[in-house]
Amino acid sequence: MSGGELARYLAARRRLVDGALRACLPPGRSRLGQAMRYSLLGGGKRLRPIVALAAAEAAGGTARAVLPFACALELIHTYSLVHDDLPAMDDDDLRRGRPTCHKVYGEGLAILVGDALLTEAFGLMATARGAPRALEAVAEVARAAGVAGMVGGQALDLAAEGTRATLATLRAIHARKTGALFRVAARTGGLVAGAAPAVLRRLTDYGEHLGLAFQIADDILDAAGGHEADGRTDQKLRKATYPAVLGATAARSHLVRARDRALAALGPLGPAAAPLEALAVHVVARTEPAAAAS
Amino acid sequence: MSGGELARYLAARRRLVDGALRACLPPGRSRLGQAMRYSLLGGGKRLRPIVALAAAEAAGGTARAVLPFACALELIHTYSLVHDDLPAMDDDDLRRGRPTCHKVYGEGLAILVGDALLTEAFGLMATARGAPRALEAVAEVARAAGVAGMVGGQALDLAAEGTRATLATLRAIHARKTGALFRVAARTGGLVAGAAPAVLRRLTDYGEHLGLAFQIADDILDAAGGHEADGRTDQKLRKATYPAVLGATAARSHLVRARDRALAALGPLGPAAAPLEALAVHVVARTEPAAAAS
Repeated sequence: MSGGELARYLAARRRLVDGALRACLPPGRSRLGQAMRYSLLGGGKRLRPIVALAAAEAAGGTARAVLPFACALELIHTYSLVHDDLPAMDDDDLRRGRPTCHKVYGEGLAILVGDALLTEAFGLMATARGAPRALEAVAEVARAAGVAGMVGGQALDLAAEGTRATLATLRAIHARKTGALFRVAARTGGLVAGAAPAVLRRLTDYGEHLGLAFQIADDILDAAGGHEADGRTDQKLRKATYPAVLGATAARSHLVRARDRALAALGPLGPAAAPLEALAVHVVARTEPAAAAS
Repeated sequence: MSGGELARYLAARRRLVDGALRACLPPGRSRLGQAMRYSLLGGGKRLRPIVALAAAEAAGGTARAVLPFACALELIHTYSLVHDDLPAMDDDDLRRGRPTCHKVYGEGLAILVGDALLTEAFGLMATARGAPRALEAVAEVARAAGVAGMVGGQALDLAAEGTRATLATLRAIHARKTGALFRVAARTGGLVAGAAPAVLRRLTDYGEHLGLAFQIADDILDAAGGHEADGRTDQKLRKATYPAVLGATAARSHLVRARDRALAALGPLGPAAAPLEALAVHVVARTEPAAAAS
């Protein structure tokens, strides 16, 4: 898949996801609904749902069947951003270049926006009555989002603030905080598509390494000021990152190794896995100096 | 069912629920796990799960089959208390006579405790693979807990603070904030037990009116200082309540009417509905002066 083909693929998938996400928002013009819309339609890359859709295709399924699960992952990702930005957590004023949800709607409503998005995520998955392993997928998403995954990772992150992070701490935080959702995105795509156990294992492996690559790449972009448009650079520097802990060169080689392992996991899945392959390549390419202009 | 029989029934059901809730808590001694345990095992009456269990029995099912759903409702109820107590919401320092979660563990962790409990609620329901209408029940619980239900009710409540509430506002807030969870408790019990549509309609009706009766009774107890041990009296007085809006006498007649409608809904369900019947009677009896000593 060429760079242009990937860009078209991503744009088409993003449209599919955005349309389905819009349909999840409550009708009417309540302030809660407006705040949910503000947070959800603020221009995310939709990477987690796209991984789920591409994994379903790699496993011989259709994007349509996995769409509720894919969108649920984005709802969960968005709720976690809204709650993480709160003053009692990371205290961020800007997100994707705009004021954070609590800055616009107040802290009380921002807490409820997160609660509502998380609840809708599970409500959406529960509409997938035709999917054969739907309940199993719901259980996996809950595990990835909960104490053993994302919420647990954020708690570790809170506890580690102000301490000097080691590589082991950093890995433990990110495996749960970011990795678990990427991993379950790839697995859910496979599960709902009815993937055989061996294929599911490969998708799991892919998701894990893609998640790690994504996190290191994000840290590298932050350190390089590549996220300046987000207004996040200064605030995020308080947190431990891969370049801060390992140095720029070693962080880069960890990134390349994670990408290569993600690619190796796809090995025998053939042309149906081309989008997953292109995504892994893209995550690393974004961090290269030549990509800065793109 | 006599008062003594109901007390024994409630104690046995509470033990069943508490045991299952304890099993939901994360292993290990993380601070997040401790804070979850503190909030979840702080001595609640477990009314919502008990309604679900009793509704399953009234519909000819077993308590065991509906237990994951019953416990999920308590996890959701507890998360909502933890988030509602936060300074950005109701700003309560005490809950059930003990310092609130954020007072003991800090605001950041209290937000995560709520997020974790809500996530575990759905994870727990998704383990009920054998239940025939499990996915449908998950969808109903999500609707009752989300924008159309509990979270939406709390948002209305936030918006109404400081304004003079009418009976219509009060009803709208409580139907969503408290009523939706009682209603879905009764419905979930019926659904998982495979209740026929007519029985499900009766259980729905029962749950709606029981929820209303419970809310009015709670308001009456608050106004009378019957919740003084909770340390909530002063703080809750800022909020609109049934006695404040209607006066004590009219609030009481609304309460009795709600109970009578709950009882009427049970009409033809026979002896299997005795615990549901006794529960509705008990909700009103708690508010009677003679009950103050019990």
